[in-house]
Amino acid sequence: MQQDNPDITLITQTAPVAATTHGGRAKCLQRLVRLNLPVPKTVALSFDAVHRIAGGEMPDMQVLLEPFGPAPLLCVRPSSEDPDWGGPGAVLNVGINDARYLKLSQTLGLRAAASIYLRFVQSFAIHVARLDPDMFEDVALDGPEGLAEVLRVYEDETEEPFPQDPAVQLAEVLRSMARAWEGTTARLLRQAKGAPADAGLGLVVQEMALGLGQGQGECGSGVIQLVDSKTGLPQITGRYLSQSQGRDALEGDASLFLERDPRGPSLQELEPEGFDQLIAHTRLMRQRLREEMQAEFTIENGQVHVLDGVRVARNARAAVRIAVSLAEDGIISRDDALMRIEPRSMNELLHRQIDPDAPRDRLARGIAASPGAASGRIVFSAAEAQASAARGEPCILVRRETSPEDIRGMHAAVAVLTERGGMTSHAAVIGRGMGLPCVVGASSLSFQPRRKTLMVPDGREFRAGDIITVDGTNGEVLAGEPAMLEAAQGDAFQTLMGWADEVRDIGVRANADTPADAQTARNFNAQGIGLCRTEHMFFEADRLTVMREMIFADDGDDRRAALDRLLPMQRADFIELFRIMQGQPVCIRLFDPPLHEFLPSDRAGHRELAEALDLPLSDVTRRVEALSEYNPMLGMRGVRLGITMPEIYDMQARAIFEATIEASKDGAPVVPEIMIPLVSAKREVELVKTRIDAAAAAVRNETGRDFTFRLGVMVETPRAALRAAEIAQHSSFLSFGTNDLTQMTYGLSRDDAGRFMSTYVQQGVFPEDPFHQLDIEGVGELLQIGAERGREARPDLVLSICGEHGGNPESIAFCRAAGFNYVSCSPFRVPVARLAAAQFAVLDKMNGKST
Amino acid sequence: MQQDNPDITLITQTAPVAATTHGGRAKCLQRLVRLNLPVPKTVALSFDAVHRIAGGEMPDMQVLLEPFGPAPLLCVRPSSEDPDWGGPGAVLNVGINDARYLKLSQTLGLRAAASIYLRFVQSFAIHVARLDPDMFEDVALDGPEGLAEVLRVYEDETEEPFPQDPAVQLAEVLRSMARAWEGTTARLLRQAKGAPADAGLGLVVQEMALGLGQGQGECGSGVIQLVDSKTGLPQITGRYLSQSQGRDALEGDASLFLERDPRGPSLQELEPEGFDQLIAHTRLMRQRLREEMQAEFTIENGQVHVLDGVRVARNARAAVRIAVSLAEDGIISRDDALMRIEPRSMNELLHRQIDPDAPRDRLARGIAASPGAASGRIVFSAAEAQASAARGEPCILVRRETSPEDIRGMHAAVAVLTERGGMTSHAAVIGRGMGLPCVVGASSLSFQPRRKTLMVPDGREFRAGDIITVDGTNGEVLAGEPAMLEAAQGDAFQTLMGWADEVRDIGVRANADTPADAQTARNFNAQGIGLCRTEHMFFEADRLTVMREMIFADDGDDRRAALDRLLPMQRADFIELFRIMQGQPVCIRLFDPPLHEFLPSDRAGHRELAEALDLPLSDVTRRVEALSEYNPMLGMRGVRLGITMPEIYDMQARAIFEATIEASKDGAPVVPEIMIPLVSAKREVELVKTRIDAAAAAVRNETGRDFTFRLGVMVETPRAALRAAEIAQHSSFLSFGTNDLTQMTYGLSRDDAGRFMSTYVQQGVFPEDPFHQLDIEGVGELLQIGAERGREARPDLVLSICGEHGGNPESIAFCRAAGFNYVSCSPFRVPVARLAAAQFAVLDKMNGKST
Repeated sequence: MQQDNPDITLITQTAPVAATTHGGRAKCLQRLVRLNLPVPKTVALSFDAVHRIAGGEMPDMQVLLEPFGPAPLLCVRPSSEDPDWGGPGAVLNVGINDARYLKLSQTLGLRAAASIYLRFVQSFAIHVARLDPDMFEDVALDGPEGLAEVLRVYEDETEEPFPQDPAVQLAEVLRSMARAWEGTTARLLRQAKGAPADAGLGLVVQEMALGLGQGQGECGSGVIQLVDSKTGLPQITGRYLSQSQGRDALEGDASLFLERDPRGPSLQELEPEGFDQLIAHTRLMRQRLREEMQAEFTIENGQVHVLDGVRVARNARAAVRIAVSLAEDGIISRDDALMRIEPRSMNELLHRQIDPDAPRDRLARGIAASPGAASGRIVFSAAEAQASAARGEPCILVRRETSPEDIRGMHAAVAVLTERGGMTSHAAVIGRGMGLPCVVGASSLSFQPRRKTLMVPDGREFRAGDIITVDGTNGEVLAGEPAMLEAAQGDAFQTLMGWADEVRDIGVRANADTPADAQTARNFNAQGIGLCRTEHMFFEADRLTVMREMIFADDGDDRRAALDRLLPMQRADFIELFRIMQGQPVCIRLFDPPLHEFLPSDRAGHRELAEALDLPLSDVTRRVEALSEYNPMLGMRGVRLGITMPEIYDMQARAIFEATIEASKDGAPVVPEIMIPLVSAKREVELVKTRIDAAAAAVRNETGRDFTFRLGVMVETPRAALRAAEIAQHSSFLSFGTNDLTQMTYGLSRDDAGRFMSTYVQQGVFPEDPFHQLDIEGVGELLQIGAERGREARPDLVLSICGEHGGNPESIAFCRAAGFNYVSCSPFRVPVARLAAAQFAVLDKMNGKST
Repeated sequence: MQQDNPDITLITQTAPVAATTHGGRAKCLQRLVRLNLPVPKTVALSFDAVHRIAGGEMPDMQVLLEPFGPAPLLCVRPSSEDPDWGGPGAVLNVGINDARYLKLSQTLGLRAAASIYLRFVQSFAIHVARLDPDMFEDVALDGPEGLAEVLRVYEDETEEPFPQDPAVQLAEVLRSMARAWEGTTARLLRQAKGAPADAGLGLVVQEMALGLGQGQGECGSGVIQLVDSKTGLPQITGRYLSQSQGRDALEGDASLFLERDPRGPSLQELEPEGFDQLIAHTRLMRQRLREEMQAEFTIENGQVHVLDGVRVARNARAAVRIAVSLAEDGIISRDDALMRIEPRSMNELLHRQIDPDAPRDRLARGIAASPGAASGRIVFSAAEAQASAARGEPCILVRRETSPEDIRGMHAAVAVLTERGGMTSHAAVIGRGMGLPCVVGASSLSFQPRRKTLMVPDGREFRAGDIITVDGTNGEVLAGEPAMLEAAQGDAFQTLMGWADEVRDIGVRANADTPADAQTARNFNAQGIGLCRTEHMFFEADRLTVMREMIFADDGDDRRAALDRLLPMQRADFIELFRIMQGQPVCIRLFDPPLHEFLPSDRAGHRELAEALDLPLSDVTRRVEALSEYNPMLGMRGVRLGITMPEIYDMQARAIFEATIEASKDGAPVVPEIMIPLVSAKREVELVKTRIDAAAAAVRNETGRDFTFRLGVMVETPRAALRAAEIAQHSSFLSFGTNDLTQMTYGLSRDDAGRFMSTYVQQGVFPEDPFHQLDIEGVGELLQIGAERGREARPDLVLSICGEHGGNPESIAFCRAAGFNYVSCSPFRVPVARLAAAQFAVLDKMNGKST
């Protein structure tokens, strides 16, 4: 072995080994060597060397074998740059042949020696000689007889004797592993995990420590880690199996546990000294590798060998606990702890659960495919789900089974229920990915999507619009809306979030329309409400009637009379919100939707309304027709309504100001923010501002109390972004409503895009659905233009984003770079946003950027 | 009179008089003096002087009166900067009093002298003393008795004797005229005509030439001009009245004509020498004032006096003839001729008429309120009119009477018919302003807008959607669509347009969907078709059925089978268009509208369709429901349809290419332009381009003939404008569709904006309806961005605009400045666009800009 040839390197404390040239496993093994852990002798082959092997250019086998002395037994493992990218399976016991078998039989016993030889022949037959694995199905894979049978099959099929030269064996194994890496399937699989097209594979060749033998002390193999993978809490965990090799201990029930266990002798009992050594080794790895590690080990005649160390597998909850512990123990910095958590994985920690004390009206059981529980109205198609979400009504998407066309519907739903499918069905996989409660395979329910009904075994029939609850944690479907418990986030979560808030340099608020939303926002430490939509407040039965009277009013006076009756209700809404938010800012968007949303759309509804308002039916239908629109998204809504029927905003402004005074009496002073929707021209802001100022003056006058408020604009039209300089003259803040802005920038209705969005994303027309990931190039440029022009006109202008995109890490990075003050997102995305924002700040610190 | 006081200036050839300081009349009079015309002595008072008079600061009357010698008789007239801004009426015979009356009685006779005195007393009483004009209603305004009576009324009412001092009289007249100008009503009226808030008034004080007298030769007054005001053709025209003053000759039937006339003696007969002199004077004015002038004159004892000259009043047709004649006579340059015509006034020259030989099925007679004739479907509301226009269906707006809320509906309609109203009703005034054929007061028709019917006296009932014709030229309403004759534009029009084309430096094309449109475009010398919408081609009955089969196809193959049947029809459409356009470019927009526009919307229609397609009704209703959209404007249309159902564009491309080959066989080679609608991402263009190129290759292959074509993009979404650089990489042209671009930039549906647009424009929220006048600030910036980025990426990129705005002079100025290659507008706006474009080029030449 030449010192100047880094392609083939004996791993020593100083050998030139790096993850980028030899792979993560080679690098990790070197770290273990540096820690003086008992690592068997190991040689690393670089990416370049392996690439050449795949091309047929074999290294000198004698050079490679030299460090291992004569007649070695070796194992070969993959070492890709990122362990997640996968690679070919390890091959054990390379080097064994008839002669060595006979020798081992004398020291280890015939059975153990046969087992070692047999394992290698089988691996070689399948991976190198490419024999069909089925050939070995009927062979008794045990003992000398099994070995003889496997060798017979090998020689029959290949018409060659099994190779006896260890150099030949090793060369063939290396070649087969190198080629497997370059195959198309393997490449596509790892690219799907984010590997670059030219990702390299390193290989490590390691001297075997045999876990088999007799009479000279305990022999066996296993894995050990110091924390629980499900919780991240300290707990010595792992598997051990006497007389085993490789990862045998992880398969089947035969393996023994590490610590005392009623089911049989444990490693601790069999080899207490080795057990203690292993714990010490793993502790040292944690300390010095600055990560919670799992050690793979072999005990050979009572001697501990550490074959490998890998990052402890973990779910999101455990990941948070582990990162926080490492930082609390001073092993990593808090910044490091923050960087170790994928923000989107926080969703897993945040699920609501059905209150265990709540009565459960169970309709069916299915497979618990994605945890958490949610209640909503039944919808039978993705389009209906999107429409429902657009109306702000939570819905449960009910499908025979889901397909990629349903993804947008799933995004729009609060839970998914399918008749067919299992844990790996589309709905289950996607549901888990999205953190969406999901029950699949609820086959006792009879789905009739065309008739839009769901038949329950007990004879009940549920229709579109009926409310059910999906409990994805235990796989149940319930009628109605049982009480829920918010997800409990533990200490580690709270600690991590606290650290995130310390380093974070962009605000995070929540979009919250209801007291429940506001409470969730508080629980997640949102820094206020960035978007409170007021329209839902008028859909409650008693208010809806008054709303309709308002709509049917003949003039401003009649309209005002109806609005006067809505005022106290609206004031009460705001008082409650202000109290929950305890003095934190609440940004209230003035009334936005078109009025026809408040009118019934069918004949029966019209008749009822005519009765309720004591009007001829023809008057009602005529008004409904007059208010109907070709393109409601682009119609008479938002500030257009505010200007043509100014009484609505007058009432809302008064309600906000009166609530401000009321809520400030018994708590922190409230400074409400009032946001004007759908602005496209400066004059709209001027006109509304004049009336809002007048309402404020009137309330101050009547009550003799003072208060302050801020008025701003929701930037949802491209024109508002372009004209931000003049709009900012009358606004103390601009908040970009990226939902509508995306619709208008693309000329694309979110409600109607479902029919072709999947085709579009599949064909790469849009790299991503722009409603789910902010379109930086187009919509983003308008945000940039709006921000720059607004700030230039008014340097203290507060800038924010309040669309669905607000919680996405990509959007947060964009908004931070553009100098935004805060992002606002749905309450459950607040933790994701807080963490993502913190990570960008840490990254900037690392890159030496001032923030 | 001091030479160094320009506030009060005797008008001489060299006196410092300018229109900007003394007004247009003063300046014109000076020009007449310079021509040595017999102008009575005149003093001009500057704007400043008059402004001071209004404030009570009177000039020295003796100085003012000095040039006129002792005992003058004077007239005072207004002289505003622009004659169109109006001003107080002239006051004649200032200076007359009892003594002068007696003296005049001796020279002119008692009756004439009394008439002169009486005229002044009455003017003074009404305008200076502010007596009620009704007071003089019962007075016999004639002879010495009338005079005595008028003086008595004056003295009774004012309780003062009539002032006898000419200086006092003049001072009072000047004061009253100065104050009248500064009154609120006068100011608002002139501001409505475009005058600035601080527009000044000058006054001219002129020695009277008396048109009254006896025995010493012909006396009288009148006006003369050398062209006909209706046609602009040479014809001596005017009125003359013996024994009259001021503009008496223009009132009543008593006036005599200038030339020989069977109705009585003419000026030519009474005073042939004076008549010839007047013609010579007026010719000289035309020659030297470089304008067709009307002279106001008085003949005093056979002596001709020219009191004033004003621009000949004229309609648009005459204006063109006059400007062209002046240029052809070498009096003004061709550029000047072009600048003298208001482009929008060209509309008046362009009206279609009903063919006189066509049979007429007359339904009613009304008032011919706005000339021209048009046929279309009946609609009963402005909203329906807009919807109809949006569908590309010409419609006649039928209303009881119109109000400002209907203006957008009138813009959308091809003609207007009202039950009520006269020549000055809203519909008539607005209709004429827009050049929209209009019949008002058709009261024999029974309008029932609620039932959406129109009852004809003969018992026939017409419903919404039925086709009628409005003949605004003779006030008739006809059933059906009689044959039309295109408006005949005379030689002068053609000459002027030719001059415009010589100087114009931006192209003008027409939007033309049908052969008729294309023919009109040719007639108006459009330089090709800038936008040919193809969708209308599928609405004809036989095609519609095939379209519906296509829509109901289950897969691409079935769709292709239906499209194969549409192909020959589509090909024939294009062959016809190409032949009409004779090798000029034709830009064809690929299929754009959502498919649901081709499906019936009511139950009966569904049943018929189910029958026609031999499908269960439920299949039909389900498909109709599936295709319905929340916001069709932002839905599945344009390139989105082209990508998800590529067979449609495949068929269209093939039809275009096959037609190209066919039409090139017997005429100029055709180079079609293919335009992709509703693009928002580069990849959309790439995908369509690939298939269009493939279709071209296939057609070339099959036919063995070569052809070229250009592929480009219609920029209708803000995103397409922002991403123009990358879109231009695959486009040889970008054409901005400002209709949709305006909708998306504002987030405002044209179909739905009607409900609040009038409020918005009234309150100044939008300075203009952005669908009628390009929003330079917002939409314009996107055009600018798109143009700059596109050209930077591809310097030879052809840029154009093809929305409704294309024909507006303001848009043309914008597009010229932004370096666009052409504008495209509806065929009837082509002449307006050609002239407006020429004017901007002339203006740049004048300002020394290179073009």
